[in-house]
Amino acid sequence: MDILKYSEKHRDFRRRLRDFLAKEVVPHVDRFEKNHRVPKKIWQKMGRAGFLCPCLPPGYGGLGGDFLYAVIVAEEMALTNHTGLAVSLHSDIVVPYIESFASETLKKKYLPGCISGDIITAVAMTEPGAGSDVASMTTTAVEEGEGIVINGTKTFISNAVNCDLVVLAAVDPSIEKKHQAVSLYLVEAGVPGFKKGEPLEKMGWNSQDTGELFFTNCRIPKENRLGDPGMGFLMLMQKLQQERLVCAMGGIYGAEYILNWTTDYCKKTAGNGKALIKSQATQFALVEMATEIKLGRTFIEKLIVDHMEGQNVAIETSMAKYWNTELAKRVALRCLDLIGPFGTLEACPIARAFRDVRVTSIFAGTNEIMKGIVAKFMGM
Amino acid sequence: MDILKYSEKHRDFRRRLRDFLAKEVVPHVDRFEKNHRVPKKIWQKMGRAGFLCPCLPPGYGGLGGDFLYAVIVAEEMALTNHTGLAVSLHSDIVVPYIESFASETLKKKYLPGCISGDIITAVAMTEPGAGSDVASMTTTAVEEGEGIVINGTKTFISNAVNCDLVVLAAVDPSIEKKHQAVSLYLVEAGVPGFKKGEPLEKMGWNSQDTGELFFTNCRIPKENRLGDPGMGFLMLMQKLQQERLVCAMGGIYGAEYILNWTTDYCKKTAGNGKALIKSQATQFALVEMATEIKLGRTFIEKLIVDHMEGQNVAIETSMAKYWNTELAKRVALRCLDLIGPFGTLEACPIARAFRDVRVTSIFAGTNEIMKGIVAKFMGM
Amino acid sequence: MDILKYSEKHRDFRRRLRDFLAKEVVPHVDRFEKNHRVPKKIWQKMGRAGFLCPCLPPGYGGLGGDFLYAVIVAEEMALTNHTGLAVSLHSDIVVPYIESFASETLKKKYLPGCISGDIITAVAMTEPGAGSDVASMTTTAVEEGEGIVINGTKTFISNAVNCDLVVLAAVDPSIEKKHQAVSLYLVEAGVPGFKKGEPLEKMGWNSQDTGELFFTNCRIPKENRLGDPGMGFLMLMQKLQQERLVCAMGGIYGAEYILNWTTDYCKKTAGNGKALIKSQATQFALVEMATEIKLGRTFIEKLIVDHMEGQNVAIETSMAKYWNTELAKRVALRCLDLIGPFGTLEACPIARAFRDVRVTSIFAGTNEIMKGIVAKFMGM
Amino acid sequence: MDILKYSEKHRDFRRRLRDFLAKEVVPHVDRFEKNHRVPKKIWQKMGRAGFLCPCLPPGYGGLGGDFLYAVIVAEEMALTNHTGLAVSLHSDIVVPYIESFASETLKKKYLPGCISGDIITAVAMTEPGAGSDVASMTTTAVEEGEGIVINGTKTFISNAVNCDLVVLAAVDPSIEKKHQAVSLYLVEAGVPGFKKGEPLEKMGWNSQDTGELFFTNCRIPKENRLGDPGMGFLMLMQKLQQERLVCAMGGIYGAEYILNWTTDYCKKTAGNGKALIKSQATQFALVEMATEIKLGRTFIEKLIVDHMEGQNVAIETSMAKYWNTELAKRVALRCLDLIGPFGTLEACPIARAFRDVRVTSIFAGTNEIMKGIVAKFMGM
Repeated sequence: MDILKYSEKHRDFRRRLRDFLAKEVVPHVDRFEKNHRVPKKIWQKMGRAGFLCPCLPPGYGGLGGDFLYAVIVAEEMALTNHTGLAVSLHSDIVVPYIESFASETLKKKYLPGCISGDIITAVAMTEPGAGSDVASMTTTAVEEGEGIVINGTKTFISNAVNCDLVVLAAVDPSIEKKHQAVSLYLVEAGVPGFKKGEPLEKMGWNSQDTGELFFTNCRIPKENRLGDPGMGFLMLMQKLQQERLVCAMGGIYGAEYILNWTTDYCKKTAGNGKALIKSQATQFALVEMATEIKLGRTFIEKLIVDHMEGQNVAIETSMAKYWNTELAKRVALRCLDLIGPFGTLEACPIARAFRDVRVTSIFAGTNEIMKGIVAKFMGM
Repeated sequence: MDILKYSEKHRDFRRRLRDFLAKEVVPHVDRFEKNHRVPKKIWQKMGRAGFLCPCLPPGYGGLGGDFLYAVIVAEEMALTNHTGLAVSLHSDIVVPYIESFASETLKKKYLPGCISGDIITAVAMTEPGAGSDVASMTTTAVEEGEGIVINGTKTFISNAVNCDLVVLAAVDPSIEKKHQAVSLYLVEAGVPGFKKGEPLEKMGWNSQDTGELFFTNCRIPKENRLGDPGMGFLMLMQKLQQERLVCAMGGIYGAEYILNWTTDYCKKTAGNGKALIKSQATQFALVEMATEIKLGRTFIEKLIVDHMEGQNVAIETSMAKYWNTELAKRVALRCLDLIGPFGTLEACPIARAFRDVRVTSIFAGTNEIMKGIVAKFMGM
Repeated sequence: MDILKYSEKHRDFRRRLRDFLAKEVVPHVDRFEKNHRVPKKIWQKMGRAGFLCPCLPPGYGGLGGDFLYAVIVAEEMALTNHTGLAVSLHSDIVVPYIESFASETLKKKYLPGCISGDIITAVAMTEPGAGSDVASMTTTAVEEGEGIVINGTKTFISNAVNCDLVVLAAVDPSIEKKHQAVSLYLVEAGVPGFKKGEPLEKMGWNSQDTGELFFTNCRIPKENRLGDPGMGFLMLMQKLQQERLVCAMGGIYGAEYILNWTTDYCKKTAGNGKALIKSQATQFALVEMATEIKLGRTFIEKLIVDHMEGQNVAIETSMAKYWNTELAKRVALRCLDLIGPFGTLEACPIARAFRDVRVTSIFAGTNEIMKGIVAKFMGM
Repeated sequence: MDILKYSEKHRDFRRRLRDFLAKEVVPHVDRFEKNHRVPKKIWQKMGRAGFLCPCLPPGYGGLGGDFLYAVIVAEEMALTNHTGLAVSLHSDIVVPYIESFASETLKKKYLPGCISGDIITAVAMTEPGAGSDVASMTTTAVEEGEGIVINGTKTFISNAVNCDLVVLAAVDPSIEKKHQAVSLYLVEAGVPGFKKGEPLEKMGWNSQDTGELFFTNCRIPKENRLGDPGMGFLMLMQKLQQERLVCAMGGIYGAEYILNWTTDYCKKTAGNGKALIKSQATQFALVEMATEIKLGRTFIEKLIVDHMEGQNVAIETSMAKYWNTELAKRVALRCLDLIGPFGTLEACPIARAFRDVRVTSIFAGTNEIMKGIVAKFMGM
C-alpha cells in the first residue's frame, strides 16, 4: 500500500537521521520539555549532519533533495515524541519564503546558515487579538530613507526564543486595502527595536519556545523586503499548501506513533489476569484506529506525490489538514483509555503525545477555517 | 488525486456502458423495484453488448480485460441507483470460481453463456441458522455411483430467482473436520431436486431477487465438482479478497452518488428563503462527507492497484470493506437530513439509496467479522 | 429512576389500552402497511373504547384525564411498531387547537366526534416549496360576505386521506407582515373546493396516509376561524411545545422498543456457535444504547412533569426533540447491524422501525431548526 | 428542570462555601498546581469552617447533613477548577468506610479530626501491576499476637503525601479465595514501617498529591481492622455505588464549568471581525454540548434522589459514571477547539480542565469496567 517511492539515497538518509536522533536527541527530550526549549547547539549538530533544509540546492550547501527528504524528516521527528526541535517548520515552511522570494544577495547571506543550523528561523504573522486574519493586521512597516521602520507585536510565534531570523508580515498603513498592503520582511534577531518575550506557558508543546515578538521603531534595510511591496499576501497564499501539508503529515505520523506504542503496550501488559489486547473491545478499538490511520496515510502519500508534481491540491490539502489532525486527537484520546492508569502519568510517552497533538487542529488555520476553504473552493 | 490509470479503451468501454445503462436500464429501474426482479432479457442485452464478465479471455467470448473493467462496471452501476442487476456479483465474484477451478470442459460449457447473459450465476454458501460459518454448514453432497447427491437448504442467495447456474458449497458428511469436508459444485437450475423459493421480502435491495434454494436428493454429475474433494474452503478463502474489494467499491461509489445528488439538491433548493447550501452547518456536513469519501476512494484505488498486481492485501481489504460500507451508511443517513422532507418520499432517489446501503455492512462478512479478521492478522 | 407517578386509574387505562391494541390493532398492522392506510373503523373502535382525546373534559365525552394519559397512549402505540394510527397527532397536537381556540359552538359540534373517532383530524400548515416557514406561506383566506374563501395547496399532511376535519393555516393577502396575516380555520372534508390528493409514497411510515390537500375557492363560514384574525402565528407558537414534546416521546419510546427487541434477539439467537450476546462488542453496543435511552427517558419524564405544571420548557423541549430523535436513528442503525442478516428482511420488525424513525429528525421542525431555536433562546 | 430540592439551610451552606472558596482557595490554585500539593492548612481552614464531612452526625462534630451537602460541595469545588483539594474523596468516599464499619472507639478517635481537617484520609486499594482487581492483590495483613503486620505496596493513591490516616485493603495470605481474604484496616501515617513515596508526576491533576505507599513489617493494633476478618470485599462493594456517583457528579459539574466558560468566551471574543459565537458551527457545537450536559445533569439528579432513598441504582450509577465522564472529555476536547489559540495556553483555565477531566474515565473503575458491570447486571 506504499505510494511513495524511496531511492537507496533516501533510505540511507533516513537511516542516518534515525541514528542521529537516537543518539543526540531522544535521550535529552525530557530535559528539553522541562526547560521549555531545545538548545541551539542541537540545531547546529543537526545542521552540520545535513538534516536541515535538505531540499535546498547544493550551491548554498544543501543536499538538493526532493520533497521526500522533508517527508522522511517529518516522519522520523514524529518518532521522537516532542515538538521543540521544529525542524520541519524551519526547513519546509519558513526557509522556503527566503528561497522563493529573497534576492540572490539575501539568499547567499542567510541560506547557508539555515542549512548549517547557525540560523534558526521563525515566521511572524499572527498578532494578539487579530489571529491570522490579514484584514486585522496592525504591525506596520514604513519606508524611511534607505530603511524600513517596523512597529507592532506578534504572538504565538514558534521558535520565538531561539530564532536568529524572522520572516515578518507587516502592512503599509498608507494603503487602505489590507490584502494589498502586506509585505514580508527579513528581520535579524539582535537589531535594535526587536525584542523577544518570555516563552508562553502552554498546554502541550512544552519543549517548543513559542512566544511573542515586539517591534518598536525597529529599523531594517530596504533590501530585506521579500519581492515587491504589497506582494506579501500572495506569497503567503502560495506557501500555505506546503505548510498545511506538513501539518497534515505531522498529524498522521503522530497518530501512528501513538497507536503503535499503545498496541505494543496492550500486547505486553496484563489487566485482570490477561493481556489487555485480549479484550474484544480493545481489539476493535485498535483495529478501527489502524484502519483510519491507513486511510489517512494513503491519502497523504498520494497528496505528497501530487504536491511534488506541482499540482494544485488546495482542496485536498485542506481536507487532509483537518481530517488527519482530528484523527490524531481521536487516536490520542482513545489510546489513553486503552492504556489505563499508566497513561495518566508523565512517565507514559502517550501522555505527552496527547497534550501535543491538541494544538494541531488549531494552528496553521483552524479546522473550521479548513472546512470553510473547502466549501468555498467547492462552490458552496 | 486519481490513482487508476485508464487507457483510451477503458474510457471507451465506460462511455458505451454509460450510454447503454442510460437507455436500457435507468428508465426501467422503478419497475424493477416494484417487481422485485430485473428481467432476464436485460441481462442478455447487457451480455450481448459486452458488459458481462469483461475480464474473461477472448477464447470464451470475453474481452480479456483487466480488473479495471470490473471497476468501471461497478462505478457505472452505482450511478443507476439500484441493486437488482447484480452484474458485479456475477462477473467478479461468482464466475471467477468457474474460471479458476472448473475443468476446461465445464468452462467451455458455461463461460460463453455467462458472458452472453444467457447464464446468470449465483453462489450458495449461507444457510438458515448457520450464516456463513463453514463449521455449521449442513448441506451435504454425497457421491453415489457416477453422481453426487445433494440435500440441504441455502438462503440469502442473490439472483436466487433468475439464476441458471449455482456455485454451491456442501459438505461430505463422512469427514469430521468441516473445513476439510467442504467442496464446491456447479448445479444447473432445472435439475430434478433443485427448487427455488419465493424471493425474500427485504428492507432495501428491492429490485434484487434474493431468496432460498432447496436441494432434495438433487443429483448432479461428479464432473460438476470444482477441483479436488475437500478443497472448497480454500477456494472460498482465495476468492474472498476480491469479493470484499468489490463490496468496498460498492460502498464508496454508492456514497459518492448520494453525496453528489445531495450537494446538487442543496444548491438548487431553497429553504426559509435561501439556498439550503448557504447554511454553514450544511456546508460543513457536505465538506466532511466529501473529505471522507475522498479518503475512502484514494484508499480503494490504491487497493485495486495492489490487488491487480497480485499482492496480499487481505488486511487492507477487510479494512476497506468495513470502513467504506460504514461510510456509505453515515453518508446516506446524514444526506437525508440535509435534504429534509423531500428525502422522506420515494420520489427522492436518496430514499432508495438509504435503504440499499443498509445491508452492505452485513453481507460478504459482517463488519464485526471484518474487524475480527484484521485483529487476527495483526497478531492481536 | 421513574419520575412519573401513575395512579391506579392510569395503570388500568394502560392495561385496557394494551389489551385493545393487542386484539384490534397489532394483528392487522401488516395489512395497514401494505394498504398505506389504517381503516377509519379502527379509529372508531378506539374512540368508542375511550382511547382518543382522553384529556378532553367529560362535558364533551372525554375522560378529563391529565397529560399522563397522553403519555400512556404514546408509549403503548410505540409498541405496535407502526405509524398509521396517528392518535397522538390527533389527540395531543391537532384537537388541542380546537379545544383552546374554537368557540363553544364549534367545540360542541366537533369535539364529541374527535373523542368517538367519527372525526379524524389533521393540521395543514406545510406548503410545497415553503416548508413550515410562515413567511413563505401562500395559501390565502379572504373574507367574502359571511364566508371565507380559501385558495392554496398544503402538503406532507398526516391523516390526509382519512381526515374529516382540518385545522388550516392561511394568510390574509391584504396584510403585509406575514406573521400578523396568519389565521387558523376549521375546514370539513367534503366541502366544495376542498380536494384530497393521493397518499404520498414514502420511505417509511407506510401505514400513514400522508398527502396533499387542495383548496380552490373553497368557501367556509366565518365562524370557522379560530379566535381573532391574525392570531394564527401566536396559536402555533403556543402549541408547538406540546407538539415537539410528543415527537420527542415518540423518539425515545421507539428507541426503547427497538433496543428491547434487539437485546432479546441477541440473547436467543446463535451466530458462529454461541449466542450473539456473548460477543463483548455486542454487549458494549447494547449497554451504550441502554444508557443513552435511560438518559433520554429520564430527561423526557422530567420534561413531562414540568410541561404538566405549565412551565416554559421551550429550550429543553427543543433539546429533547432533536436529541431523542437522533438517538432513535442511531439505535435503529446500530441494532440492525447487531441483528445481522435477519434485520435486512421485512419479516424483522426492526426493519420497519428503522425506516419509520428516519423522518422523526425532520418533521415538526428539523433538528437543525431545533438547534437554531436553542441557540436563539440561549442568547447566542 | 431541577430535581433536587434544596432548603434554605442548604442554600446558606452553599453561599458560605462559595465565599470561602473564593477567598481562601481560588486565589492560590496556580500555586497548588505548581507545587503539586495543597497545603494541609487549607484543609484545616476548610474543616474548621464546617465544609468537611458535613454528613457526619453532630455527635462527632459534623453537621448531620443529608447527601445534598455532599452534592453542594462537589458542585462548588468543580468551579474552582483544580483537583488537589480532594474533599469529596475524603468526605464522601473514604470517611464513610470509618463511619459505617469502624468500632465506636475508632470513630470517636478519628471522626472529629476528619471533620476538623486535622486528619486527611486516603483509601489504598490499587497495587502496581494488579490495578483494582482484588483477585491479584498481594499486600498482606497477618495477625501476630495483639497486632497485625502489613507488607506490600499501594499506588495511584490520592492524598498520598498529605494523608494522616489510610483505609487499607490487604489480604490474609492463609486464605485461598481472594474475595474472602480481604479485610480493611486503618493505618495512621507515622507508624513504623509505613512510608510514603514521592508524588507521581501526572498528566493532569497537578495539584493532587497522588503517590505510592509502602508497608514493610508495619505493625498496627488488631482493633484497627474494620469489622470482621474477610469482610473487606463486601465493604468495598457496598461503598462503590457512592464512589461512582461522586465521580459521575464530578464529570457533569466539570463539563458544565467548561461549557459555561467557553460560551462566555465565545460571546466576548472576536475572530475575523465578529464574535466567535456568531458562527453557526460554533452555535450548534455549544447547543449540542448544552443539551447533553442537561441530559447528564437531569440523570444524575434523579440518581442522587434515589441514592438518598437507599435504592439500588448500581446499573444506573455505572451508566452515569461512564457516560458523564466521557461527556466531560468530549466537552473539554471540543471547547478547546472553539476557544482556538488561547486554549493552548496555560493562562486559559480550560487548558487545565482539559488535562484534568482526562483521568475521570479511568479512575474508580475504567469505563470499560463500568460497561462490563452493566452488561452483567442486565443479564448479558
